[in-house]
This record gives sequence, structure tokens and C-alpha cells, in this order.
Amino acid sequence: MTMTLFTGLSAFPLTPMDDEGRLDADLLGRTLDRIVTAGADSIGLLGSTGGYVYLTPEERKRTLRAAVECVDGRTPLIVGVGALRTDTAEDLARDAKAMGADGLLLAPVSYQPLTEEEVFRHFEAVAGDLPLCIYNNPGTTRFSFSPDLIARLAEIPNVAAVKMPLPANGDYAGELRRLRAMTPGGFAIGYSGDWGAKDALLAGVDSWYSVAAGLLPGPALALVRAAQAGNAAEAERIDSAFQPLWALFREFGSYRVMFMLAEVLGIGHASPPRPILPLPEACRGRVQAALEHLVDVVGDRAESPI
Amino acid sequence: MTMTLFTGLSAFPLTPMDDEGRLDADLLGRTLDRIVTAGADSIGLLGSTGGYVYLTPEERKRTLRAAVECVDGRTPLIVGVGALRTDTAEDLARDAKAMGADGLLLAPVSYQPLTEEEVFRHFEAVAGDLPLCIYNNPGTTRFSFSPDLIARLAEIPNVAAVKMPLPANGDYAGELRRLRAMTPGGFAIGYSGDWGAKDALLAGVDSWYSVAAGLLPGPALALVRAAQAGNAAEAERIDSAFQPLWALFREFGSYRVMFMLAEVLGIGHASPPRPILPLPEACRGRVQAALEHLVDVVGDRAESPI
Repeated sequence: MTMTLFTGLSAFPLTPMDDEGRLDADLLGRTLDRIVTAGADSIGLLGSTGGYVYLTPEERKRTLRAAVECVDGRTPLIVGVGALRTDTAEDLARDAKAMGADGLLLAPVSYQPLTEEEVFRHFEAVAGDLPLCIYNNPGTTRFSFSPDLIARLAEIPNVAAVKMPLPANGDYAGELRRLRAMTPGGFAIGYSGDWGAKDALLAGVDSWYSVAAGLLPGPALALVRAAQAGNAAEAERIDSAFQPLWALFREFGSYRVMFMLAEVLGIGHASPPRPILPLPEACRGRVQAALEHLVDVVGDRAESPI
Repeated sequence: MTMTLFTGLSAFPLTPMDDEGRLDADLLGRTLDRIVTAGADSIGLLGSTGGYVYLTPEERKRTLRAAVECVDGRTPLIVGVGALRTDTAEDLARDAKAMGADGLLLAPVSYQPLTEEEVFRHFEAVAGDLPLCIYNNPGTTRFSFSPDLIARLAEIPNVAAVKMPLPANGDYAGELRRLRAMTPGGFAIGYSGDWGAKDALLAGVDSWYSVAAGLLPGPALALVRAAQAGNAAEAERIDSAFQPLWALFREFGSYRVMFMLAEVLGIGHASPPRPILPLPEACRGRVQAALEHLVDVVGDRAESPI
């Protein structure tokens, strides 16, 4: 496997907003520093975990500007440019390039359900000078890419990768084989859905687009490196350390859990954009316990910071 | 049935944008005049057919301002204030009130799937001085309201109505009975999904939130009045006249069809916001034929304009 922009661990930070809805650039900086220090392969800025769709184009530019300044070339920055309107996404992609991002994530955000042709033409319009990853996230966009559409998109210059949701049947190897056969060599195939990452990585996928790594980059990277080295036992061990967190992610949605996790880790306070509500206070004990379990199992062997 | 803001025929106009993406206020005015002239009971401005979610808050304000000016109190104006963020929807609701709208439509637009509690709190925050209709449109928002949630929302002051999607099992009467039993007297229960409107109206629902009526208010109103008068045969006859149009709506999505229908009717040219694509040119003949069928069957008996 050649390491490229869309290979390895991509860590997805929150975009922390203060109680007045303004970007908390300090807290964003602290979060990004942890990811850089841990050695993640890339940062997935303004992804679903970064709440990109809830921010105005101006708030998104401000976030990218702060991130570029903080990261300062130490780790590649991939930035989400998805928008309901094609012209908005085109503008965001142009801004991202001008401001120094290294790559783009593009999700087919929808309201009226989109046809495959509409999604194809949307991607064709937005893809430009920067390498682009197809953000296949039907849980939020409600658009599912067929393998044929992925293959067609992979022919567009600079469309370099796809971020897949976990396959419903759990057959990572089979899906990977089919997608590899339909896409050019070098087209990177990665997965999101943290609780399936271990199996996906052991099946040989190129990357893990990780929510947890936005706050826990050390253990997430240890899992990726173990899988890349073919050390299944170690990958299983680290994944098992994450199990209580995965259970919370599945029960409440990882987005809501991450805000409380940031607090429990002592990194800082931020709230999800309403209508999304923070986790109930009653969950704090479970989040703490999940974190303690993780530290108990992998704390001493993971690269810092946990 | 007492006639209230959310009773009878609510006609949903397109929001026509020119090729530079600016509101075509003349074309909007022509569309609204037809609805007013036909005598529709209300206008559902900036609904899904009005593409509200694709417009910036500024574009939405401009649209409402133009509509208020044109309609000038002749027909009640209900305006869609749905937005991904609660604060945005609150601002839009305040603007709507200040600018002279008569009522609000609120859809729980989502990206991260929402919980019932989140939707409840969202509605509670947005509901204010104007009567509000719950916009239950899972085909676009991907949020389905449970009957319990509708009942809970109906207790919020000024939450006065719900716009329901067609029941999957076709049991309008049963669903209506259950909803009536759970909601206060005077709470209006209406339906969208034009091809099911005739059955819904004959089952006794309070209103039809109609896409077709945005461009064909005459025959749509004739259908409503026939059903309100208990004239099932006449309602069936008018519905049968619409059948070829309903077939196009179901095949391509009513939103895409409406733009071509505006052209075929000679009202004017507007394009859907990309990524939504116009209907293929090859469909023009079918749209024309659907319109001719409608004129053949009801043209002489419907109020103008067709």
C-alpha cells in the first residue's frame, strides 16, 4: 500500500462553537494539536463530526483559516465542502484550495432525493485542483452510492478516494474486492463507522475515517498501525478497549457523544448546534467509564495523547 | 368543518430563480396571481416546492417580501421557515411575522438524524406569535413524526396544524380518526402527496397541501370543493383528469416536473437549483399530454386559471 493523502488514519475533529455560536479557535487548536502530535495521517476537518452542514460558508472559511494556521503543514488537511447547492460547494472548494487545504471531502447533501446523474454532475462541477474523496454517508445524506456510480466518479480527474459506510452484511473483504475491481489503481477505499474499523482495516482497506480519532488519536492510530502491520491480535485488543465507547456511539450517535467526551477528557466545553442536544447528564458516568476502560487496556501502549 | 388558515386548498408555488440564481419576482408574481385569482384558501410559500432549503435566509426574505407585496392580503400566506439550525429557523419565523405572513410551516430539516426530543424542543423554540403547521415530510427531511409526538406538539400554543404524508397503507380514515383523538379540537389535519389528495379529502381531512395547485390552482380547487361538498363522483372525475400528471410526479418527483410544467403552461422559465436537474427534454411531450388530458376532462368546468 502506497501512503497517499487518503491512506491510513484520518481523524475527524469537532468544530467547537462557544455558547454564542462563535468558533472557539483555541479549543479547535488544542484538538488539532493532539491529532498532529499523535501522528495521524490526515485531519478530516469539517466532516460530519465537524458539523459542516450546520455552519454558514463564512463560519466554514473561518474554521479552515484557523485550522491551516494551527496545523501549519504538519499534517495534511482534508476539508468537507458538501452543500445542498452545487454553486455553494464549488465556492467552498475554491476557498479550500486558496486557503491551503490538501484535499476535499464531498458528500451529496440532499433535501429532494437526488438521482445518480444529479450526484455525478454535482461531483463533476465541484472536483477541481485538489484531490477529492467521495463522502458516502447515507446515514446523514440519505443518498447511497451504487458501485457503478463510484466507478464512474473515480474516472473524474482528482476524484481519488471514497469513504464508505460499513457494509450491512459485514462483508468488508468482498465489498473491497468488488470496488477495487471497478476503480483505477491508486484509488483509495476507506471506511467510516468506528465500530467496524478494525474489521475493515484487517480486510485491507486503505483508510479509517475516524470520529473517535478526533479526540482519541493515540489509541486510534495504534489500531491502524497494528492492522497495517497485519497484527490482528493487537488490533483486536485495541478495538476491545474501545467497545464501551462504540456502544455509546451506536446508542446516541457519535456526534452527540463527542461533545461530552471533549469535556470528560478536560479538553474543553462545546455544545452541538441546536436542534442537536447534548447527551443527557446521566450519561456522563458511562462516558467516563468508557474512557477509563480504554486507558486501562491501551493507555500505556498507545502513543499520546489518548 | 370551520374554515381556518390551515383548511381547504393550500397551493405551493415554485420560487422561480433566473439563470444567475436571482429571484424572478415577475414570474413569482404571475404565479401568485393565478393562485389568488383561482380562489385557493392559502398559499404555501417557500415549501418544498418553493425550494426553501436551497435558498439563503436573505433569498428567503426577498421572496417573502415580493410575495407579500404581490398578494397584498388577498389570500393568506403561509411561509416555510424550516432550517437545519434552530437559531436560523427562529430568525426566519421572526422575519415572517414582521413581514406580514399569516402562518408558518416548519419542517424538521435534518443531517444528523434527530431524536423526538430534539424535534420537540426545536418546534418549541420556533413557535411564536403566528399559527404554525407541522410539516411532516419524511421523504425530504427523513424524520417521521410519531402520533405521540404530534399530540405533544399540538399542545404548544400556536401549533395549529399538521401536514401529513400519505399513509403507506392507504388508510386515511383510520389515521385521521387516530390523530383527531390525540389532538385538540380545531387542530387541523391535512395531507400532501397530490396523487392521494382525493382519497384524503373524501375521508374528511381538513386540507390539501398541493404541489400541482402552485401552477394549476383551478382544477385543484375544483377537486377540493367537490370533496368538501361530499360529491365523490365529481372528485373522482377531477382526480382522474390529473392522473397523467400524478404519474409524472411519482416517476420524477413533483419538484422537477413543476419547472417544466411552468414552461409548458407558458407562465415562464425557471430552473431548479443544481444539483437538481430539469426534466429531460424528452419528457416535454408527456407533460404536454398530461396538461391536455387535464384540460379535456375538467377544463371547461374548473375555475380559471387552469
